[in-house]
Amino acid sequence: MHALAMLNQPSADAPPHQAGRPPVELVDPHTPHLSVLDLGATRGDGVFETISVASGIPQALEPHLTRFARSAAALDLPAPDLGEWRQAILAVADVLAQLPEASVKTVYTRGVEGDGRPTGWVYGTAAADFTRARTEGIRVVTLDRGYRHDVAVTSPWLLADAKTLSYAVNRAVLREAARRGADDVIFISSDGYILEGPSSSVLMRRGSTLVTPGTGLAILEGTTQASIFEFAAGRGMRTEFALSPAETLQQADALWLVSSTRLAAPVIELDGTSMPTDRQFTGSMNEFLSARKS
Amino acid sequence: MHALAMLNQPSADAPPHQAGRPPVELVDPHTPHLSVLDLGATRGDGVFETISVASGIPQALEPHLTRFARSAAALDLPAPDLGEWRQAILAVADVLAQLPEASVKTVYTRGVEGDGRPTGWVYGTAAADFTRARTEGIRVVTLDRGYRHDVAVTSPWLLADAKTLSYAVNRAVLREAARRGADDVIFISSDGYILEGPSSSVLMRRGSTLVTPGTGLAILEGTTQASIFEFAAGRGMRTEFALSPAETLQQADALWLVSSTRLAAPVIELDGTSMPTDRQFTGSMNEFLSARKS
Repeated sequence: MHALAMLNQPSADAPPHQAGRPPVELVDPHTPHLSVLDLGATRGDGVFETISVASGIPQALEPHLTRFARSAAALDLPAPDLGEWRQAILAVADVLAQLPEASVKTVYTRGVEGDGRPTGWVYGTAAADFTRARTEGIRVVTLDRGYRHDVAVTSPWLLADAKTLSYAVNRAVLREAARRGADDVIFISSDGYILEGPSSSVLMRRGSTLVTPGTGLAILEGTTQASIFEFAAGRGMRTEFALSPAETLQQADALWLVSSTRLAAPVIELDGTSMPTDRQFTGSMNEFLSARKS
Repeated sequence: MHALAMLNQPSADAPPHQAGRPPVELVDPHTPHLSVLDLGATRGDGVFETISVASGIPQALEPHLTRFARSAAALDLPAPDLGEWRQAILAVADVLAQLPEASVKTVYTRGVEGDGRPTGWVYGTAAADFTRARTEGIRVVTLDRGYRHDVAVTSPWLLADAKTLSYAVNRAVLREAARRGADDVIFISSDGYILEGPSSSVLMRRGSTLVTPGTGLAILEGTTQASIFEFAAGRGMRTEFALSPAETLQQADALWLVSSTRLAAPVIELDGTSMPTDRQFTGSMNEFLSARKS
């Protein structure tokens, strides 16, 4: 079960693809809908979001849309018309309403060079089964991201805090992890600080405090991490954004990679060393995340 | 005038898209040929080359194919079948034979996730008119690339020496250059060395020696730069690969950005400061480059 919606006018600041077409059309995902000249395909020149859908309800939809617009701004793309995107997401989510766990991906590209019309689509499908990652945990290696922790501030053209389509590195590090017998990666800045996973945020428990790398770093603001901080605050736990040296990973009382569709995956091994886990707290977090109604 | 060829089996190590289809098909560039699920479009997960075509003759074809295969290997893509790619390039170049200056782009992606069949196409069109850039020159700014000069060696997963489809940064820096009143960019490593342009190599003249940043850096090997070194050697000039601090740009006797389609563009202004130029030598280089018969 899957569904694809193409947007006729993904930004109000750019012309529609075809006058008089409906704003959102559900089309056959099996046929080609993209020009080989689209800058999304030839230059990774665009942005995206992945949003979990629980029984037809997109989770953390508004924070995802906010981040989507922020990524687009970082790339100087015309502002996405979030009303149109919301409509497309809901249309696709509706098709997936019978699935307990699904996800939709929103993709927004600069379109064909010189054409002046950006391209937008929303694709949804059943989520993979992440039960094992959530309960048994994942093995993680740390890898150099190459960038200092502060490039988002010093060198904004590196787009380090935008969720772009230029994710070849994010995929390459997963292959490197597999070569090292691991499932996932935590990026370390060239000056030795914890950043993020290639498609997740890093979350640590230190005593009764939940810690994630600070904003203002060369990382994405985490939508799932934000939900977890709400959950933790509701239980009276302290939460903290902190610039943290790589060495502090090993000292955490528990460590997770958190993301929209896999949710909280406990790290059971870091660079070959076993990590303590907290099965009960992990379970509570994932119950909370799964039950989100918006 | 333009042409598009889709490859049925871009790698001999992966199945064809459709049994019995011709290996290379010229198709209508105006209709969509790409799935929105193609990892080229959703993750910038692929590689490319841009090759100049002079009156139907692809220039530096074999060095481009060699680099194409090397980029693919860096991304762990199945080895491209260079015979098929060569055939597709020649088919597209043939359509463009009446144009004195054209270019073809080869694009090779990982294909639709889970499908196991990479996607390949060759698109060719008339080149823009670069006369002004070649004769009047370009204004350039230096921008931080974020990476140390040696990440290609220390952190190969950053793909710094592969020509990937993840070029959002290479496009963002051109917008930053425009904001600074410039036409192009020279990347500087985070530790202060000259790297490359976003789609070009850096070439300096120091006395009677032509210098380009050394191999083994976090940069692409330049196919046009290699042609120029042949040209220079033929004239008895010295050529040198050298790791060079950013400050040495200002001390050059002449400075160029060189690339396949624009050829050698003299830098007339660097970060707002006028640079010396060598109009006669620039002209000779570009004549040589334009006249290449392979």
